[in-house]
Amino acid sequence: MELAQAVLEGDRLALARLLTRIENEQPEGWEALSILFPHTGRAHLVGVTGAPGTGKSSLVNSLVRHLRQNANRAKPAPRVGVVAVDPSSPFTGGAILGDRIRMRDLAGDQGVFIRSMASRGALGGLAKATRGVVEALDAAGYDKILIETVGAGQAEVDIARAAHTTIVINAPGLGDDVQAIKAGILEIADILVVNKSDLPGAQNTQRALTMALELAPPPISEDDKPVWLPPVVPTVATKNEGISDLVSEIDRHYAYLKDSGELAERDRQRIHTELELLLSEALSDQFFQRMGQSRFDQVLELVLDRRLSPQAAVLELMDKEKAG
Amino acid sequence: MELAQAVLEGDRLALARLLTRIENEQPEGWEALSILFPHTGRAHLVGVTGAPGTGKSSLVNSLVRHLRQNANRAKPAPRVGVVAVDPSSPFTGGAILGDRIRMRDLAGDQGVFIRSMASRGALGGLAKATRGVVEALDAAGYDKILIETVGAGQAEVDIARAAHTTIVINAPGLGDDVQAIKAGILEIADILVVNKSDLPGAQNTQRALTMALELAPPPISEDDKPVWLPPVVPTVATKNEGISDLVSEIDRHYAYLKDSGELAERDRQRIHTELELLLSEALSDQFFQRMGQSRFDQVLELVLDRRLSPQAAVLELMDKEKAG
Repeated sequence: MELAQAVLEGDRLALARLLTRIENEQPEGWEALSILFPHTGRAHLVGVTGAPGTGKSSLVNSLVRHLRQNANRAKPAPRVGVVAVDPSSPFTGGAILGDRIRMRDLAGDQGVFIRSMASRGALGGLAKATRGVVEALDAAGYDKILIETVGAGQAEVDIARAAHTTIVINAPGLGDDVQAIKAGILEIADILVVNKSDLPGAQNTQRALTMALELAPPPISEDDKPVWLPPVVPTVATKNEGISDLVSEIDRHYAYLKDSGELAERDRQRIHTELELLLSEALSDQFFQRMGQSRFDQVLELVLDRRLSPQAAVLELMDKEKAG
Repeated sequence: MELAQAVLEGDRLALARLLTRIENEQPEGWEALSILFPHTGRAHLVGVTGAPGTGKSSLVNSLVRHLRQNANRAKPAPRVGVVAVDPSSPFTGGAILGDRIRMRDLAGDQGVFIRSMASRGALGGLAKATRGVVEALDAAGYDKILIETVGAGQAEVDIARAAHTTIVINAPGLGDDVQAIKAGILEIADILVVNKSDLPGAQNTQRALTMALELAPPPISEDDKPVWLPPVVPTVATKNEGISDLVSEIDRHYAYLKDSGELAERDRQRIHTELELLLSEALSDQFFQRMGQSRFDQVLELVLDRRLSPQAAVLELMDKEKAG
């Protein structure tokens, strides 16, 4: 297929077009992804999340610039993809302008590709489209893919599960400690960042996070495999402070994932989930096509009148299907 | 069934037990729900959401107290259910202690029932369990059910879709205006609250929200049906300021929903979604049982080796199923 081939040859316009097809759930998008799939599995997927007001966008900006500029002959600059996901704006149908313009200073760099995404409103639709976009960037040869999400909810957790390394950003002054910990989604963090660490209260935030980490059950090492203890990294993204330390931790975590066999395990889980979701979707589509909308609507009316419970309605629909 | 009967008779212990069964996805929980379903559809479901640090818990506390205490003979106090959902803590398997103790001062009131829920980690599992818990409280005769969610992500949007009236809480000092708007999930708000309105910057927050509302496309009135313009209500939950205004707006919105026919429409959408989800889940379960785990694992290996794309794998699995 032409589109997939052009993406593999490094055509940025073709890549942008493919991502739009994937976002809009057009069949040719998924066909192209199917062709590209054998070329995936090489990128390091890094999730970046945290509550509003923590300075995520600035931090991602600063990270990308650092990754691109601090290369040398021994260590060439990685090609960097950025997927900025905004599930909190479900009905705008496009990302907020600010997201698109904020990375203008990186726009001339051919080794960087930035994509903003907003939710399409469909249940699970964003998580699915994000996985597709990340796969496309992976196949297109981007070495590090940063997946940035706004907020701290289930969607972020799902997206984090699709990353190899998850960075959770905190900042001082966002409510009390318990809330800082909740918002931090501590349990999914491989690396914790205290951004805006030049503000008053930064040391308290750092202390609270370190304490919360100490309270968590320690990881158990099996068969002398290495274990990972999430570090807490202070940064001031707007001044590029601490970014070099953060990059070191990201690289150290990637090395740990490979050495411990955890990388293969996370990939297995990711693809397992994807397969289950695709299968479930295909089964529903097939069922609805066979059953017809009017049959579904009939049963829906019975449920709305409280004459049938939703559970009984499902049994009824599936029985009829079998009998027919 | 005994459990369902006891719940209908007002047995609080039975209700607590039922909610646990629903949360743990035990079959008897769903059986009881099926029996209770004809008794649902009478409660006013109120979603309360907002970013961490906005003071949601205090506001819900204050709301419940006001609803219970400001009754008179003409207007008896409604029975109030509270479902506090915390999707940001997916792996703790139980809500954070703070959530359980924070409403201690309401604990003696038999007209109030409080339930904290944390995500079970399963994709969509929390949304499903929340719907079940809300249905159980509805059947048990709670008139107002407050569904409180932490964060501002897709999960919150899904939960908001399950409510009749959605309140989005904001507070001054949580990042710049664009972020306040994002975090506010303006598009799903029926009522906007600026809590902590005694803090500096509260007027700016209120102005930003009002401006954002004015920028939104105005609702179109069809056939002279009434339209709803989301009000912005300032509150100081910890001092019980503005709570009476907020309760008035909640009641006004409920009246609007009934008058405009929107209540029936939202119920239809809610039950439509629930039916689709239950059906999709039942189809997957049935398919996996027939196919067997080993067949799935075989195909998963092919995908992990990049010899088969996930899309092709799904076609393969469904074809085999048909042939078998």
